[in-house]
Amino acid sequence: MYGLTDMLNAAAHARPAALSTVCGGRARTWAQTRERVARLAAGLQGLGVGPGDRVAILALNSDRYSEFLSAVWWAGAVVVPMNIRWTAAENAYSLKDCGARVLFVDRTFAASAAEVAAACPILEHVVWCDDGPAPDGRLGHDQLIATHGPAPDSRSGGEDLAGLYYTGGTTGFPKGVELPHRALWFNNLIAAKILEVEPDDVVLHAAPMFHMADSTLGGAASIMGATHTYVPRFEPEAVMAAIEAHGVTQTVVVPTMIAMLLQHPAFATERLRSLRVIGYGGSSISRGVLTEALAKLPHVRFVQVYGQTEMAPIIASLPPKDHVVEGPAAARLAAAGRAAPGCQVRIVDGAGADLPAGEVGEIVVRGPGMMHGYWNLPDQTAATIRDGWVHTGDGGYQDADGYVFIVDRVKDMIVSGGENVFSAEVESAVSTHPGVAQVAVIGIPSDQWGEAVHAIVVPRPGFTPSASEIMAHCEPLLANYKRPRSVTIRAEALPLSGAGKILKRELRGPFWEGRERNVN
Amino acid sequence: MYGLTDMLNAAAHARPAALSTVCGGRARTWAQTRERVARLAAGLQGLGVGPGDRVAILALNSDRYSEFLSAVWWAGAVVVPMNIRWTAAENAYSLKDCGARVLFVDRTFAASAAEVAAACPILEHVVWCDDGPAPDGRLGHDQLIATHGPAPDSRSGGEDLAGLYYTGGTTGFPKGVELPHRALWFNNLIAAKILEVEPDDVVLHAAPMFHMADSTLGGAASIMGATHTYVPRFEPEAVMAAIEAHGVTQTVVVPTMIAMLLQHPAFATERLRSLRVIGYGGSSISRGVLTEALAKLPHVRFVQVYGQTEMAPIIASLPPKDHVVEGPAAARLAAAGRAAPGCQVRIVDGAGADLPAGEVGEIVVRGPGMMHGYWNLPDQTAATIRDGWVHTGDGGYQDADGYVFIVDRVKDMIVSGGENVFSAEVESAVSTHPGVAQVAVIGIPSDQWGEAVHAIVVPRPGFTPSASEIMAHCEPLLANYKRPRSVTIRAEALPLSGAGKILKRELRGPFWEGRERNVN
Repeated sequence: MYGLTDMLNAAAHARPAALSTVCGGRARTWAQTRERVARLAAGLQGLGVGPGDRVAILALNSDRYSEFLSAVWWAGAVVVPMNIRWTAAENAYSLKDCGARVLFVDRTFAASAAEVAAACPILEHVVWCDDGPAPDGRLGHDQLIATHGPAPDSRSGGEDLAGLYYTGGTTGFPKGVELPHRALWFNNLIAAKILEVEPDDVVLHAAPMFHMADSTLGGAASIMGATHTYVPRFEPEAVMAAIEAHGVTQTVVVPTMIAMLLQHPAFATERLRSLRVIGYGGSSISRGVLTEALAKLPHVRFVQVYGQTEMAPIIASLPPKDHVVEGPAAARLAAAGRAAPGCQVRIVDGAGADLPAGEVGEIVVRGPGMMHGYWNLPDQTAATIRDGWVHTGDGGYQDADGYVFIVDRVKDMIVSGGENVFSAEVESAVSTHPGVAQVAVIGIPSDQWGEAVHAIVVPRPGFTPSASEIMAHCEPLLANYKRPRSVTIRAEALPLSGAGKILKRELRGPFWEGRERNVN
Repeated sequence: MYGLTDMLNAAAHARPAALSTVCGGRARTWAQTRERVARLAAGLQGLGVGPGDRVAILALNSDRYSEFLSAVWWAGAVVVPMNIRWTAAENAYSLKDCGARVLFVDRTFAASAAEVAAACPILEHVVWCDDGPAPDGRLGHDQLIATHGPAPDSRSGGEDLAGLYYTGGTTGFPKGVELPHRALWFNNLIAAKILEVEPDDVVLHAAPMFHMADSTLGGAASIMGATHTYVPRFEPEAVMAAIEAHGVTQTVVVPTMIAMLLQHPAFATERLRSLRVIGYGGSSISRGVLTEALAKLPHVRFVQVYGQTEMAPIIASLPPKDHVVEGPAAARLAAAGRAAPGCQVRIVDGAGADLPAGEVGEIVVRGPGMMHGYWNLPDQTAATIRDGWVHTGDGGYQDADGYVFIVDRVKDMIVSGGENVFSAEVESAVSTHPGVAQVAVIGIPSDQWGEAVHAIVVPRPGFTPSASEIMAHCEPLLANYKRPRSVTIRAEALPLSGAGKILKRELRGPFWEGRERNVN
């Protein structure tokens, strides 16, 4: 009834001669893309790929990435977009975990892929998806297309598995999130509404295409029959050049990328004249960045998207009208937004009971984007989907107008003397001390308070802040119960995950040895 | 995973105190509406309504109509919104056909309902859904709510049947279109995008709520958590008063209603200041009406929606930017629009082969709104859904930009000497003769041409146009092959269906006796 090849077919029926992809100097129409996808699907079938089989990709952004996704769905198989920021070991783990026997790889990841392939005896084919001839007699994406006639569309859809998206490198082994066609189809439609995409628009893949932030934009473009354009990876000058060259109307990035664009020496409002909407995800936008953005890009509408891979990913969004820097409405800038259409958001306490507006608890969600579960992990699935609700692990509250505010990861929240302390808020206060390069705030055991607030500080080169100095610095900034009760000054950098998040579990470990923490 | 009670639950979670419905002087919040719906569902269960059972309604627009829809879904049952323009006999037929044992009825249809009920021995309960006490000791909508505690949500959804929508009175017996939750859910989302509905909007139910044109607006409002307001039926003064009183931002009507509003003596732009979007369906808008509308309502965005009940109903839409009355783009005003997101539209010849842009054939469609089929009519279902495509029965073409133009019903198109003649175009020319009150153009058998163009004319009182006068009138207006070759002057009015459409099959009958027409 509905599947992810519908987008390609609909656009090819409606406007066969309209541009589907523009990648550097290479442009293809929807009719051409459909033909290439149907042939690539036949090529995959020739490699033994059948319905439900997993096919992975490790590559920078390009039109071939888009063709790959559609071709795998055309063949009735399952895409596995691999994290380009992970180590070869992490990717080898996820590749083995999902049992992919075919991996597409571009020039940038060819060497890394060799390492991954060596660790994966199950891997049978590594396909070269880049310009130029495939090295070492390897199969090539373009060669598969050239040597195969079009396959019929498998018409997989509905609850058929469409993709496995690996996540959670920060909390141990990556987990494969199982997303059916239904979940991504609904999300494409929701994203098209939220990001205001229309058929004549041109979107730019600026964030990495393996990531759900970018896939919301790509899905929205495909369902509207808009044109996809690409930069291999985010780089301000390349992004601005692509916007100028192709008349880009929408892109999705993270807030730091917006700041990088605005502050780039070659930035000029005129170069971004065609842009109508900038979507962003990963965090809320600071008043400082937004003030600068509204001044330098007054014609652009800003939209925040809050999501999680488990929801395919959209949960909430903050629309353009809430991007104001003055007046009472400016408080909404800190919000993740309002629940997406048809998506149900509740704030619950530890026992799963609803909390009133304004009170902090865990954000739990339900909606048409919900995953089936984690690949081969029934226990973790059961721990995440409880009573039909996905437990996001995000701590937050909802105001009376339905705006959702995220305050911390639930497992990083500290309960001290019966009060909730949000590590993110304390970190924000500590980080304003001029001598602090990095800070992590964690809860450590306290017989008196249950947990006590503890800060771990890495000084800036040339500074030697003391523990008492840090604690004194917080006095005017934080209520008494939120202030660090103890501070560790640490010489070496804080441990980071592959995605660049601080591994707080590792920091908490020594303090909690032999004890049980309520939330971990 | 997803069902039509999600809308109500999502809004009640996000903004329990926001207004859900405002009907006359009565306002209810989303929390109140959810409570009432859960109680009404319990009341239905008390009447023996279980999952999959059909529950019908015959009523003008009101907040109770919205509660009815949600309560039936809450109970896991199937709504049957009955056509308020049909005769009691037609409604009795559809009520028996679907096997509903419970019928909701308001004051306006109480008498008619008695007739329907008498013809339907299967009907066990007629529920009064109007203000004031129920007559004759009948059960009341409000009484069911007052006397029952809330039932748990059945959480029906996905491919579960959500509604039976009767259609097709013009072509014999009404057919019940089976729409699952999936079809309506997707349509709600598509309608929210097309009609630009946001959470703080206020929509007005001005067209009858049994009709899919209105249900697109209602569904869009519910999925966005916007406020529903009502007029019992379309009446220009009441509509303007409601828009003023409630700050209405969106409504959906038919183009003639737009004209009625603009030409009403009490029309004033100021009264419609809050309106942002007017959606319309049923036909395209004439340049004359749009010119007047743009002059008198410059702040309003116009959107055409083309649909069919079989697609739940959205197939295509014409966005605000295509509502221009001058320049080359004005030609698009005659279009039904571009395919809705993810909806596939093809133009095919009699053998089902794709036709190139600009050529007229049958419009066939596929998409997430597709019905399961016609209730208990496997043959008619098989005739309509062929190879996975819904055959709309509409003849039309698609231009190179993907705009779909409808020229005629396929069965009313005439093939004369190998050329397609569209009865609607010929009727439009004949009707400009001052002596013509009504006209129908049909194809009649011709040994020379296969079919010959024939006009049936009802003269205006006081006029006596002759056949040759009519034919001569068409000479400067139509290409030779399109002109009527014969004319019948008819004293009595043309036969009409309950929906007011001319019954051309009946007119063709005498001409084709004993012969087979290719399309019938």
